[in-house]
Amino acid sequence: MSEKLGVIAAWQDIEKIRGKSPLVHSITNYVVMNTTANALLALGASPVMAHAAEEVEEMALLADALVLNIGTLSASWIGSMLKAGCAARKMGIPIVLDPVGSGATRFRTETALKLMRTAPPAVVRANASEIRSLVVSEKGTKGVESVHAPEETLEPARALSADFGSVVSVSGRTDFIVQGGRTISILNGHPLMARVTGMGCTATALTAAFAAVNPSYLAAAANAMAVMGIAGEIAAERCAGPASFETSFLDALYAIQETDIKQRLKMEIL
Amino acid sequence: MSEKLGVIAAWQDIEKIRGKSPLVHSITNYVVMNTTANALLALGASPVMAHAAEEVEEMALLADALVLNIGTLSASWIGSMLKAGCAARKMGIPIVLDPVGSGATRFRTETALKLMRTAPPAVVRANASEIRSLVVSEKGTKGVESVHAPEETLEPARALSADFGSVVSVSGRTDFIVQGGRTISILNGHPLMARVTGMGCTATALTAAFAAVNPSYLAAAANAMAVMGIAGEIAAERCAGPASFETSFLDALYAIQETDIKQRLKMEIL
Amino acid sequence: MSEKLGVIAAWQDIEKIRGKSPLVHSITNYVVMNTTANALLALGASPVMAHAAEEVEEMALLADALVLNIGTLSASWIGSMLKAGCAARKMGIPIVLDPVGSGATRFRTETALKLMRTAPPAVVRANASEIRSLVVSEKGTKGVESVHAPEETLEPARALSADFGSVVSVSGRTDFIVQGGRTISILNGHPLMARVTGMGCTATALTAAFAAVNPSYLAAAANAMAVMGIAGEIAAERCAGPASFETSFLDALYAIQETDIKQRLKMEIL
Repeated sequence: MSEKLGVIAAWQDIEKIRGKSPLVHSITNYVVMNTTANALLALGASPVMAHAAEEVEEMALLADALVLNIGTLSASWIGSMLKAGCAARKMGIPIVLDPVGSGATRFRTETALKLMRTAPPAVVRANASEIRSLVVSEKGTKGVESVHAPEETLEPARALSADFGSVVSVSGRTDFIVQGGRTISILNGHPLMARVTGMGCTATALTAAFAAVNPSYLAAAANAMAVMGIAGEIAAERCAGPASFETSFLDALYAIQETDIKQRLKMEIL
Repeated sequence: MSEKLGVIAAWQDIEKIRGKSPLVHSITNYVVMNTTANALLALGASPVMAHAAEEVEEMALLADALVLNIGTLSASWIGSMLKAGCAARKMGIPIVLDPVGSGATRFRTETALKLMRTAPPAVVRANASEIRSLVVSEKGTKGVESVHAPEETLEPARALSADFGSVVSVSGRTDFIVQGGRTISILNGHPLMARVTGMGCTATALTAAFAAVNPSYLAAAANAMAVMGIAGEIAAERCAGPASFETSFLDALYAIQETDIKQRLKMEIL
Repeated sequence: MSEKLGVIAAWQDIEKIRGKSPLVHSITNYVVMNTTANALLALGASPVMAHAAEEVEEMALLADALVLNIGTLSASWIGSMLKAGCAARKMGIPIVLDPVGSGATRFRTETALKLMRTAPPAVVRANASEIRSLVVSEKGTKGVESVHAPEETLEPARALSADFGSVVSVSGRTDFIVQGGRTISILNGHPLMARVTGMGCTATALTAAFAAVNPSYLAAAANAMAVMGIAGEIAAERCAGPASFETSFLDALYAIQETDIKQRLKMEIL
C-alpha cells in the first residue's frame, strides 16, 4: 500500500493545512454553513461559500478543494453544483460530496447520483444509510440520521467506490474508508457527536481540507476522520452537554498537537 | 379537563421524546436552522430540514411532526410550506406554525393566514404582536419583537383558536396557551432568553417534538413552554452573558431531569 | 473636526443603542445570519432579517438602519437589495454595505458597485482587498480573506469615499475609517477574530447599529470598530480557542462598560 498512514502522516497533513491555508469552496446546506466554516478556520483552512450560477465556476478556479453538500437542496442549487463540479474536475481539484439525506427522498438520491456521474468526486463522505441508498434500491434512510450500522455497509461502499472510482468514507461509531480493495477503519470519536447538528457535514468539510493538501484521497479521508474523532474525544472530556461539546470540539481542533494524535489515534488498515 | 398536566405529564413527554426520537420536519428560517436543529437534538428528537417543492411531501410522510416558520420567507418557500402542510394534514401529523414577523409586513401576515386556512396547524406558537396581527386589523409588530404583553393578547388568542381550532401558544414573560375555553399559563423562563436570536423559533421546534408524542396538543404546547423556560432558568445560573447562556440552555435541555421540573414548574390552569 | 470622538462619545453611542434598541434590517448572507443577529442583540439593538422582494421596502420603512451584505449572493437577492436600498435612501436611514468577496468574482464586484451607485451607502465596511477591488481594476481577493494589509489601502479607500461620499471602513490588524480628508485608525482587536467566520460581517452589523444612533457616520463607524475590537480583547483573555472566543466575544459585547473603553481604546485621528 503506497499511501502514508498513521500518526506522522496525519500530523503532516495538519501542518500543511495550517501552513498553506487551502481555500475550500463550499456549496453546502443552510444548517451548517456557519459551523463548517468555523471548523475549517479552526483547522487552519480558509472557507468560502458561494452558490450563484454566475460565480461558482470562477470561485472553483480560486479554490483548492470543493465541497458539494445536498443537505437543504433546491432545484436552482443543483445547476450550480454541477457547474462547480465540472470546473473543479477541469482544474484537477478534489471534490468531496456529502449526499445528506440520500435515500430519504427520491429528489436527494437522484441528485446525489447525478452529481456523482457528472463530476465524480474524490471522496463521498456519508453515513451508512446514505451510502447504501446510492447503491442498493431499498429505501433505508429516516430523515438525515443513519438507520444502518457502518459494518453493514462495507460491501455497498466498495461497490460505490468501484462504480465511480471515488474514495467512500462511511461515518458512524466506527468509520470505514474504502477504495478499490483497500479499507481503513477509524475507531476515534464520541457519542456526543451525534447530538450536534451537522457533525457529518463538518467531517465532509475537513475531508476537503485534507484532500487539498494530500494527493492520496484515501489517506486524506482517513486522516480527516481520525482528527475529527480525536478532537471529539478531547472535547467530550471538557463539556457539560452537546452545546459546550461543540464549542470544545472547535477549540480542540484549533489546538490539536502531534501528541494528541499519538496518544489517541485508533486507525486500522483492514 | 381531560389533559394530563403537571410535573409527571411533562416528564413523561420528555421520556417519550428521548425514547422514540420523533422526526421533526422543519421548513424554517435561515437564522435559526442550526440552533433549532441543535435544540431538537439536545431534547432527544431528530431534526430534518427540507424545503424543496420536489421533496417536502415525501419528507412529511416520514416525519412525526412538521414545523412551518415564516421567518425569512420568500415566494418559492410558501408553495413548499403549503404542500408540506397538506401532506402533514393528510397523514394526521401535527403542524406547528410560527408566524415570525406577522404584522410587520403585509406579506408575512397574509402568508401566515394562508397557511392557517390551507392546513390548520395543531399549534400556533408566536409572540403577542404576531398573534394579534392574525386576528385584529391593527399593525402592531416592530420587526420580529413583540410590542404587546401576552396579557393583552388573551382575547385575540382565544378568537384565533376558535377560528381555526388550533392551540394558540403566546410566549412572553408569561406564556399563555389557549384552546377553546381552556387557558394555561407558564411563568418559567428568564429575561436573557430575549437576548438570543431565535429562542421563539426554538420554542416552536420543541413544541413540535412534544406534539409528536402527546395527542393533546394543548398539553404538548404547555409542556414544551414549561421545559423551555426551566432550561432557561437553569442556564441563567451558569452563564456570563447571552452567548454562554445559549450554550448552557442547550446543555440544560439535554440534561434535564424530573427533579428539575418538580422544583421549578410554574404552570397554572386559569 | 466636528465629530465627537473618544471614550465618552463611544460610550454615549452604546447607551443610546441600549436605550432605543434600534431596528437593524439586514439582507445578509446565510453564513452569518444567526451570529450577526446575536451580536446586535448582545449590543442592545434589534435585528430583523427579511429579503423577499415583496416585503423589503415595507421592512426598510420600519427600520433605523439597513445592512446589505453580499456574502452568499444570488440573482434574486440583488433585486431585493436594490429595492431595500432605495427605500432606505428615501427614508433617510443609513445603509451599511459589506461587499464580501468583492474582487474574487466579477459577479460580486459588479453587484457591489451596482449597489453603491444605486443607493450610496452611509458606510462601506470591508477588508483591504475588497475595498481595492471597488476602486482599482486589479483582482486581489482570494476567497473572502484579505490578501492586502489595510495600510496599502488608504489611498483606494479615500478614492472610494470621494466617488460615493460614503465613509469607508477598512478592517484588518489596524482598522482605518476614512471620509473626505479625514482618517481615523483603531488599533483594538485580537488575532483570534480572524479565526471565527463572519467577524467582518459582525463589524458591519454593529456599524449599522451605531449609525442608527449617531448622525456622524464617520464617528459611528469608528466607534463600532473600537467597541468590536475591545470586546475581542476582553474575550481573548477568557477563551481556550476560536469557539469559546466567539462565545466570550458576545458575552463581552453584552457586558461592556465605560471603564472597558477607557482602559482599552486605541483610537487615533490621523
